[in-house]
Amino acid sequence: MTDFAPVADRLAASAEANRERLFELLRIPSVSADPAHRGDCRAAAEWVRDFLTQAGCSAELVDTGTAERPGHPIVFAKTPRVDGAPTLLVYGHYDVQPPDPLDLWTTPPFEPTVRPGPGGAEHVYARGATDDKGQMLTHPLAVAAWHAAAGGPPVNVTFVIEGEEEVGSDHLDAFLESHKAELACDAAVISDTSQFAPGVPAICYGLRGITACEVTVRGPKADLHSGLFGGAVANPANALAKIIASLHDADGRVAVPGFYDAVVPPTEEERAAWAALPFDEAAFLETTGAPEPVTLPDATVLEGRWGWPTCDVNGLTSGYQGPGPKTIIPAKASAKLSFRLVPDQDPHAILAAVREHVTAHCPRGVTVEVTPFHGTPGVRFDTDSAPFEAAKQAVEHAFGTPPVMIREGGTIPVVRALGATLGCPVLLLGWGQNSDGLHSPNERFSLDAFRRGALASARLMWELAR
Amino acid sequence: MTDFAPVADRLAASAEANRERLFELLRIPSVSADPAHRGDCRAAAEWVRDFLTQAGCSAELVDTGTAERPGHPIVFAKTPRVDGAPTLLVYGHYDVQPPDPLDLWTTPPFEPTVRPGPGGAEHVYARGATDDKGQMLTHPLAVAAWHAAAGGPPVNVTFVIEGEEEVGSDHLDAFLESHKAELACDAAVISDTSQFAPGVPAICYGLRGITACEVTVRGPKADLHSGLFGGAVANPANALAKIIASLHDADGRVAVPGFYDAVVPPTEEERAAWAALPFDEAAFLETTGAPEPVTLPDATVLEGRWGWPTCDVNGLTSGYQGPGPKTIIPAKASAKLSFRLVPDQDPHAILAAVREHVTAHCPRGVTVEVTPFHGTPGVRFDTDSAPFEAAKQAVEHAFGTPPVMIREGGTIPVVRALGATLGCPVLLLGWGQNSDGLHSPNERFSLDAFRRGALASARLMWELAR
Repeated sequence: MTDFAPVADRLAASAEANRERLFELLRIPSVSADPAHRGDCRAAAEWVRDFLTQAGCSAELVDTGTAERPGHPIVFAKTPRVDGAPTLLVYGHYDVQPPDPLDLWTTPPFEPTVRPGPGGAEHVYARGATDDKGQMLTHPLAVAAWHAAAGGPPVNVTFVIEGEEEVGSDHLDAFLESHKAELACDAAVISDTSQFAPGVPAICYGLRGITACEVTVRGPKADLHSGLFGGAVANPANALAKIIASLHDADGRVAVPGFYDAVVPPTEEERAAWAALPFDEAAFLETTGAPEPVTLPDATVLEGRWGWPTCDVNGLTSGYQGPGPKTIIPAKASAKLSFRLVPDQDPHAILAAVREHVTAHCPRGVTVEVTPFHGTPGVRFDTDSAPFEAAKQAVEHAFGTPPVMIREGGTIPVVRALGATLGCPVLLLGWGQNSDGLHSPNERFSLDAFRRGALASARLMWELAR
Repeated sequence: MTDFAPVADRLAASAEANRERLFELLRIPSVSADPAHRGDCRAAAEWVRDFLTQAGCSAELVDTGTAERPGHPIVFAKTPRVDGAPTLLVYGHYDVQPPDPLDLWTTPPFEPTVRPGPGGAEHVYARGATDDKGQMLTHPLAVAAWHAAAGGPPVNVTFVIEGEEEVGSDHLDAFLESHKAELACDAAVISDTSQFAPGVPAICYGLRGITACEVTVRGPKADLHSGLFGGAVANPANALAKIIASLHDADGRVAVPGFYDAVVPPTEEERAAWAALPFDEAAFLETTGAPEPVTLPDATVLEGRWGWPTCDVNGLTSGYQGPGPKTIIPAKASAKLSFRLVPDQDPHAILAAVREHVTAHCPRGVTVEVTPFHGTPGVRFDTDSAPFEAAKQAVEHAFGTPPVMIREGGTIPVVRALGATLGCPVLLLGWGQNSDGLHSPNERFSLDAFRRGALASARLMWELAR
């Protein structure tokens, strides 16, 4: 098998050129949410396609949507075929969040500027620096290095780089379904998360899922005078509070029957590993502003965020919300609820159980309706598998320290979509930091992390081929 | 003592003229809420003053407010002194609600028009027809009839007719305090409520009081991502629901310790009397649109509305309230609460108990704050007293049927203010109907009720003098 040293040398030699390539891509204001930037989105897609072509791939743009409602194109590319070698699928996105509020940027969002960031290290400041142009580009750069050093990587690499991640990935599922055979792979890699902390690279192997709904309680046909009618008519806002309160027991456990039936709790091994992480509770409280952490009994903060499901009210609306008093019995009251799910909870089954519980706990004199929103199951990959072993080695090689194995509490639908549609493990290898200002002004990315990320990606291809 | 027959004859003879007087007053658009109608409010006050002067009273306008923030004047008048006779204070108001929405009026709001109403009976349609010009004017007409028939009523009558009832009676308390000695009386009468039902005249002898507050629960310093933080941070909206739910027990009783301590429950006599009233539950459900009445255990609908205190949420606000989902842990959640009170509950003591209960039931990980609003105690007058006996006789004389004795669930601060400041019972004698469109388009007043109301007022003066 090919030696890795020439590839590493090639990356080192291209460091300056690779930065310039990133800056070129960052200068394209590919804001997917803004129709005025439709052309810029296509330009970014073309830039990625052209770079992958130069790197030896067969690359094309796949248009999405319809003539009436066109989407942004997907860059679909493949490295030269290596028979018998495993296939790695790279997912990423070239679109970025809107840069507003512009007046909070120190330098313009689409004029990448290098200056010292935390710890004095060089960072590039620009919209998309971390999310996701900078992180995503490490993989094409790795392929380019392999192309220059050895005619191509020792594995098959498929690229799916979309332009609608920041607006809901509306056309991705259809693309995955229609290209299922061409996308078959042994593992997928996504660099769109973060390290655990500065100097602590991480591989994320699990995400929570979600199901959500709106609960609407109705009573009188219009707001009533609380003096004339209070005491003889059920109050929908009081009833809603009773329903919401019934969702948790006194210990904070979700009280919906069957809610925990399918939950696979964190293993003892995971609990020990998470307990060993350099988690800073003071910083957590500073970030959130919460007076104290509140978790399930016996759960740590990380276990509460990564390993257990939740039931949170996201919003409440009823009656009079202006200043001062207004003494009415409101005609209706509603709450938005979301449930973060862990494997193996099924969003549909959970929502059905919630609906049943809410209906059973609806006080008399009012009616209740549950309107479901979209759901996504959680994911948890087997970290003892070959792709994860390869990723651990690759990250350690590039960052000089073994990665910590973490889960995250959020939901990334594409991870579930890739895993479910293609049946492959998904490696979440983030090179950036949570503090890099994703979706905020002055977004940045460490140029050292950019360099190490490309090296890790190249090394991952080498490890997978072993 | 003077015979009543000449007074009744005089009223009968003046029936046509009295209608014209009402129409004159109704033509003055005395909308107190609208600064553009400031002059009209004064014109209405002058009209009342001048009419009372013609009716033999010494009458004046008392300006209210300050030079910078002037209020609308109070008409203050007295009939010729009758030594040794009791004194009756008449409270009413000459200001009216804004007439909007104008396009829903069949005839213009300030062009009083006579046409058939319910049952084909003649009604006058105009803003203020019932509330309160038509009802209020019955008392000056009674004095005018006494003046014409006998040189004046056989009792001392004091008029306090204000122009700010529809905008909060901001200057009334100061007037009552500063004129306390001149306002001393044996009873007060207010015609600003309604009969129990068509053909069922009523005397209201009790009103509920009120205390209200806003409960605000705070947690994180800003809305948090429910995926990244859910499971480790307390949710203020869930906490608020727990707090609100804790305010009632499973039977719907208010669970705040001490809440019922001072409550004087409806007596067996009252319960029997209310049970005998022609209460139409089907009509109640039709009016409210509630699926079923909900009261305390063993309480009837009227007992729930008149005889027991309540705890109602008037409004809820938290987090995301737009369409669709948004998965956040809100930084705060708040509820407006109002408590209708019955004698002898003290609004301050109740609010203190609520604050203590809310604080004790605040879950950990959040903080709670209770912001008090204004409070008024409930009132309940002794109906076995001479003024109530006189009122019963007077209403029966004029309406041909004995009045039913009722309470109301609402709060009328002026009743409490008169009762507390002057130490007198207050007779709530309503001539109109709840269905007369008070505060709504096409407000109306039965001309038969108008005539009978004036007769009842004149007879009340005669009864009180006996």
